[in-house]
Amino acid sequence: MIPIISIVGKSDSGKTTLIEKLIPELTRRGYRIATVKHDIHGFEVDREGKDSWRHKKAGAHTVIISSPQRLALIRDVEKDLTLEEIREKLVQDVDLIISEGYKKDAQPKIEVFRKEKHQELLCTKKDNLAAVVTNQSFDIDVPCFDLEDMKGLADFIGKSFLPSKTNENVSLKVDGKEIPLNRFVRGLLSNTIKGIATSLKGCETAGRIEIHIKGKG
Amino acid sequence: MIPIISIVGKSDSGKTTLIEKLIPELTRRGYRIATVKHDIHGFEVDREGKDSWRHKKAGAHTVIISSPQRLALIRDVEKDLTLEEIREKLVQDVDLIISEGYKKDAQPKIEVFRKEKHQELLCTKKDNLAAVVTNQSFDIDVPCFDLEDMKGLADFIGKSFLPSKTNENVSLKVDGKEIPLNRFVRGLLSNTIKGIATSLKGCETAGRIEIHIKGKG
Repeated sequence: MIPIISIVGKSDSGKTTLIEKLIPELTRRGYRIATVKHDIHGFEVDREGKDSWRHKKAGAHTVIISSPQRLALIRDVEKDLTLEEIREKLVQDVDLIISEGYKKDAQPKIEVFRKEKHQELLCTKKDNLAAVVTNQSFDIDVPCFDLEDMKGLADFIGKSFLPSKTNENVSLKVDGKEIPLNRFVRGLLSNTIKGIATSLKGCETAGRIEIHIKGKG
Repeated sequence: MIPIISIVGKSDSGKTTLIEKLIPELTRRGYRIATVKHDIHGFEVDREGKDSWRHKKAGAHTVIISSPQRLALIRDVEKDLTLEEIREKLVQDVDLIISEGYKKDAQPKIEVFRKEKHQELLCTKKDNLAAVVTNQSFDIDVPCFDLEDMKGLADFIGKSFLPSKTNENVSLKVDGKEIPLNRFVRGLLSNTIKGIATSLKGCETAGRIEIHIKGKG
């Protein structure tokens, strides 16, 4: 599962600026980053009159523009999605998701704090605060990094949130919820399914296997 | 799997206009539609200086803007994605994907033809031509619809591509490829996995089940 961290801070603390400086440091280390930003005001779909704008205007739920280098998607949602829901539905091919804001979400947080702007931190350890990036010293039980120390911060993120990948991985979801599996059940599921799948024609060397069962509900 | 149809036609035949008229007819019948448009020239990410633009400029692979009504995503790709790849990676919560163009893709096609613009059809049955929307009469072995007959066209699409949903559904993918399952294997997989899953704590009434196994490759 792709790890998520949220860059939080009071308004005008420099969240976007921090993300702007952090991304190149992480991409230099070979990580691919996705960012998520919340925009309560909504936003426009492309420019008026363009084809994708006309599709959306006509009532399309989802509009996609695809090019050889880039892909853009705009879709309707019924409510604000959580970071977990966004990860589940839309994010692939990256190593880490960084959100700007999302203070109320359960994900681990890195707070930006500038002493000339604010008096107190926004988060406590209860908010899943993992680190503070600041120009003030705090007596606090999480690592603090200087506002300019992107190398230190990237090291910390790499070590804490981007563990070396394992070779084998089994996940089970029931009705959209990830079910924790112990070693026995993990092995049972994996071996049973592999046993069936690899006996099918053309699947003898099966690597990644996905199964979806739609319930009667 | 969400069905895909491609609206094709020579340039200036009225593909966007047809899609614009077809979407309301389909949404009125309760179908949710996604559209896909190819843009060889690429496109810009948001407006210069905005936060999501700054994230992308800093090197983010994927940028997402989320609001309570809508979600936008822009991501890098390494090559032009096929319609199947786009469906696999990015489309959920819709009943039908309509692409504008994508003549070379394998999906079923509906060609728009105006006699005042062109001489000959772009597609033949070999191109998986499913219907023609035109103001000319053709002696051809696929259904033809008048340019204004959106009701007839929507009926045809509903009947041909949007079959009534079954209650139970099992799919198996190995290394990204959908594996056809006969009734026996379908039942074997479904019953085995349900047997294991429903014996886990909290999963007694499991409906939808998803399993992902990452190979050693």
